[in-house]
Amino acid sequence: MAEPSGQRGGLMAAEVAAQPEVLARVLADGLAEVRAVADELRRRAPRFVLLAARGTSDHAALYGKYLLEVELGLPCGLASPSTYTAYGARPDLRDVLVVAVSQSGGSPDLLGTVEVAAACGATTLAVTNAPDSELARAAGLHLDVRAGTELSVAATKSYTAELLTLLLLVDAWAGGDAADARVLPDAVHELVVRRAEMAALAHRYERATRLVTTGRGFAYPTAREAALKVMETSYLGAHAFSGADLLHGPLAMLDRGDPVVAVVPPGVGATAMAPVLDRVVERGADLVVLGDAAPPDVTTFALPAGVSERAHPVVDIVALQWLALELALARGLDPDRPRGLAKLTQTW
Amino acid sequence: MAEPSGQRGGLMAAEVAAQPEVLARVLADGLAEVRAVADELRRRAPRFVLLAARGTSDHAALYGKYLLEVELGLPCGLASPSTYTAYGARPDLRDVLVVAVSQSGGSPDLLGTVEVAAACGATTLAVTNAPDSELARAAGLHLDVRAGTELSVAATKSYTAELLTLLLLVDAWAGGDAADARVLPDAVHELVVRRAEMAALAHRYERATRLVTTGRGFAYPTAREAALKVMETSYLGAHAFSGADLLHGPLAMLDRGDPVVAVVPPGVGATAMAPVLDRVVERGADLVVLGDAAPPDVTTFALPAGVSERAHPVVDIVALQWLALELALARGLDPDRPRGLAKLTQTW
Repeated sequence: MAEPSGQRGGLMAAEVAAQPEVLARVLADGLAEVRAVADELRRRAPRFVLLAARGTSDHAALYGKYLLEVELGLPCGLASPSTYTAYGARPDLRDVLVVAVSQSGGSPDLLGTVEVAAACGATTLAVTNAPDSELARAAGLHLDVRAGTELSVAATKSYTAELLTLLLLVDAWAGGDAADARVLPDAVHELVVRRAEMAALAHRYERATRLVTTGRGFAYPTAREAALKVMETSYLGAHAFSGADLLHGPLAMLDRGDPVVAVVPPGVGATAMAPVLDRVVERGADLVVLGDAAPPDVTTFALPAGVSERAHPVVDIVALQWLALELALARGLDPDRPRGLAKLTQTW
Repeated sequence: MAEPSGQRGGLMAAEVAAQPEVLARVLADGLAEVRAVADELRRRAPRFVLLAARGTSDHAALYGKYLLEVELGLPCGLASPSTYTAYGARPDLRDVLVVAVSQSGGSPDLLGTVEVAAACGATTLAVTNAPDSELARAAGLHLDVRAGTELSVAATKSYTAELLTLLLLVDAWAGGDAADARVLPDAVHELVVRRAEMAALAHRYERATRLVTTGRGFAYPTAREAALKVMETSYLGAHAFSGADLLHGPLAMLDRGDPVVAVVPPGVGATAMAPVLDRVVERGADLVVLGDAAPPDVTTFALPAGVSERAHPVVDIVALQWLALELALARGLDPDRPRGLAKLTQTW
């Protein structure tokens, strides 16, 4: 472990630091299972994919949506569990793949969604960190993300393990050989050892009353997950906007000096973000860019090189996990003991 | 007009107040067009629906998603325009209906999405307030929401007109006779004349540094749209969470006295919200409930009676449009002139 768990944030820090090892395990031990599921999905050839998740895993599901749409040309939606569990919708789900993503596999509304989906004809797949969970058993197919027991209330290693598992699945489904995934344990390690830089940034944000995160395309789930981590651990109102949505209304909210963290790894998303970043600078916000594609005089945080755009989300969030943790510490809080939260939240 | 447009917020106020008349016009003049489109969609029998929109219209699209899933059992997703316009995805969209919702019909990324969707085999429908727009012309089918010219930067009447048009469409598609829509002009009028109550609530929130809105199921789009209106006009960081997601993490963010506005019209959503509201009260937040289903000693704002759960979103947002407007005025701002925003935002 990176530090004794008796220290504030020690549990979360240990799990952030464990991510290179977790990702290496997913690559070493998980690929056979992933390929078997990919073969089965190719055989079933679904026309449409619905992804269901809550909290952190919802951001993994959003990442999965971009992967499935861009890499496989499969139209996708994020399921609204209440449609099935509360309103009793019984849609025609033949030719539909329903993917539930959940660290614990214990969320009753995801279980309900998978049960209804299966009864309505869907192929069901659960992606969990709990192969013995009810959710894993209820789904026709299961992928274990192999993150190991997660003790921190703020999920970190289970998130990147979910992302990598989804990347490997879509890659295998498309007939790939996971070439761009193999660099990920080392790339993540590069960020694990840069905690101090995020501690400095946290100091800059110590007295902020809110934080905005933004990204476009594959980087948007990273912006969403970073905002959730900050809210969970630092109680700071953090807003995530896609670069496109930020220009619709929320831009007006930005005051001079308001902190904005933009996730801009190289690629198509970075090109689409350029005009958004210019507008953020015009508003006088305190912009920090993860990546190189920043307007002049803006603080940047270099991301590891040699990572494909679609694989960057597995890497980039690690810097922002450190930021959330350090921001909590800077504000005198213990990210391992967030008020009002337990590890598994039951929702119906 | 409700007040001279020279007054701060006069444009927005006039358009909020015009909504009963706009909705009556949609019912009187729009039904024939809606029924013709519904007949055509029934004939084409799509298996999936993708909805694409930005900003306020994105909340109308989310409402459409709940309607299509619950009333027609059609699996739905919200499209990520960048998938098509930036990443160049060319999915197989035969049997898929793509619905673009846009007040102006002038958003380049929605136009791009509809063009790609049509080329990929989708049935395309544009729901706009601009029948002569490029988007309306590009889509195979079009519905005019008949809201009249919208001058306020903060969209109000075009939003409720979009909601009602989508309600009428799904109702006609399901073979209904729009029975529960006929009460809406009068129900909205009941809220239009209660501006003073929202001015009082705005006074209570005058010094707030953030605001949380929440709702579940059909009420969730109302919570989302209310948060956007507040951000656009009052520059207050406003967070919308579905009742289920609020329990995952963001609950920890709530401090004693933090304002939370819950949208809880009677129905299935209200039942699902009950445990969420109890947790919000436990955290000591300053909860206001729109609806009757509130924990003891919580301030409530009575919603008009005799409105079906699925039609409530057309009504309930009106109270929150007043809240956003009054909050801007209480904070010394002019909601008709939000800084950094223009009426049409171009995004790619």
